[in-house]
Amino acid sequence: MTGMVSLVGAGPGDPGLLTRTALATLRRADLVLYDALVSDAVLALARRARRFPVGKRAGRPSMAQESIHALMIRAARRGQRVVRLKGGDPFVFGRGGEEAIALRAANVPFEIVPGVTSAVAAPALAGIPVTHRGVASAFTVLAGHASSSYEPVLDAIAPNALTLVFLMSVAQQQPIGAALLARGWRASTPAALLFAASRDDEAAWTGTIEDLSRGDGVFDQERPGMIVVGDVVNVREQMGFARGQDVERAEALR
Amino acid sequence: MTGMVSLVGAGPGDPGLLTRTALATLRRADLVLYDALVSDAVLALARRARRFPVGKRAGRPSMAQESIHALMIRAARRGQRVVRLKGGDPFVFGRGGEEAIALRAANVPFEIVPGVTSAVAAPALAGIPVTHRGVASAFTVLAGHASSSYEPVLDAIAPNALTLVFLMSVAQQQPIGAALLARGWRASTPAALLFAASRDDEAAWTGTIEDLSRGDGVFDQERPGMIVVGDVVNVREQMGFARGQDVERAEALR
Repeated sequence: MTGMVSLVGAGPGDPGLLTRTALATLRRADLVLYDALVSDAVLALARRARRFPVGKRAGRPSMAQESIHALMIRAARRGQRVVRLKGGDPFVFGRGGEEAIALRAANVPFEIVPGVTSAVAAPALAGIPVTHRGVASAFTVLAGHASSSYEPVLDAIAPNALTLVFLMSVAQQQPIGAALLARGWRASTPAALLFAASRDDEAAWTGTIEDLSRGDGVFDQERPGMIVVGDVVNVREQMGFARGQDVERAEALR
Repeated sequence: MTGMVSLVGAGPGDPGLLTRTALATLRRADLVLYDALVSDAVLALARRARRFPVGKRAGRPSMAQESIHALMIRAARRGQRVVRLKGGDPFVFGRGGEEAIALRAANVPFEIVPGVTSAVAAPALAGIPVTHRGVASAFTVLAGHASSSYEPVLDAIAPNALTLVFLMSVAQQQPIGAALLARGWRASTPAALLFAASRDDEAAWTGTIEDLSRGDGVFDQERPGMIVVGDVVNVREQMGFARGQDVERAEALR
């Protein structure tokens, strides 16, 4: 008997933002292979499954991608129901595509369960719509963890043309601000840093890309974080969210 | 007693892709104001609520945005729990930002419940990851319903630099293909049309942007549809999904 693999998006962290199908796959799973960004509250829903971390954690490197493939395939061939659980959506920088291809090549049945992507949900929960009539009619999602990941994308986009969402950009605030200024983005372009969206320890900072380039808003921490750039950041205040830097909380992050 | 308004994303259509929090808001709602893209299967979950369509349906115009605001505010002031239910995510071309601002201005308590955005989920369910290592390291989401919505965005993006997802682009296949060619995108750039993702009547077509510009893949229909452009479309085949045009189903759409 062959089992199967579900490639599942866990959403941004709050277990309420898990989909009903994702919950069903977790409840019947025999084995859950999860990434570092998956919250404990979500993992706790997989009561009967063995749970095994395969992502980067506190400095330790992640398991090699090939080893993750081998682990999924071996368990499925033993008849297990495997859930490959990823933060946000499995196909937004989740390497879910590579895993699906590996499963197909091994003839292991798989299904794709899309999730609530942090790229949209984290700004939304902070009062920032990624699109807004008269303000932004498009948004681009890119990876912010290294200049080699975002610089080629920024080179391809005209300044101040749309909303940018840099995922995985903790500790990259200063170089990202500088990279935007160097490409002609207005120094006063609003920017937000969003940490641990939808979780108990969530926090936000807002300012401009010039502030970022000067090193303001650079917090050294382990929490997942992203940067949102564009005039849509100002909508936050119109919705009644706190203005500017949430100093008290920001200080607590240092 | 004041009620409240929940701005809720309904996801792409399959009620399994509703979040647990969205389901909870629907179950306790007194009034649900829903858009045309919300599926009947999702609506059916709001058992005890009055349900009222406010979006465009079969040629009839949608309710004016101001009227929707007034309706929400009036019901909440009467103490009702109102769910404003939108297809996908409320802040991805959903005008959720405007509604949140109106609620704030009226001092009506509101909450934001992000949803699974079709921009990511529809491609994923069709075997197309919007990002894929070595193929695309960013994606841009834009509205495809009118040239005035997508042309300024295309003018701001270098050709073949990232994945494009055109939402709401049924019947715009030909002009979108032409607009991409005119801006120097490779004629052989893969493209997919995705209709009614996650629903019983879902269908897909794949080809190139040149095919689109010639009028291939133009189906005249009522179903929600989007266009995905970029090399990530080829990943679909590597995952074992049908190659090229799904002729039988495509014909059925004409």
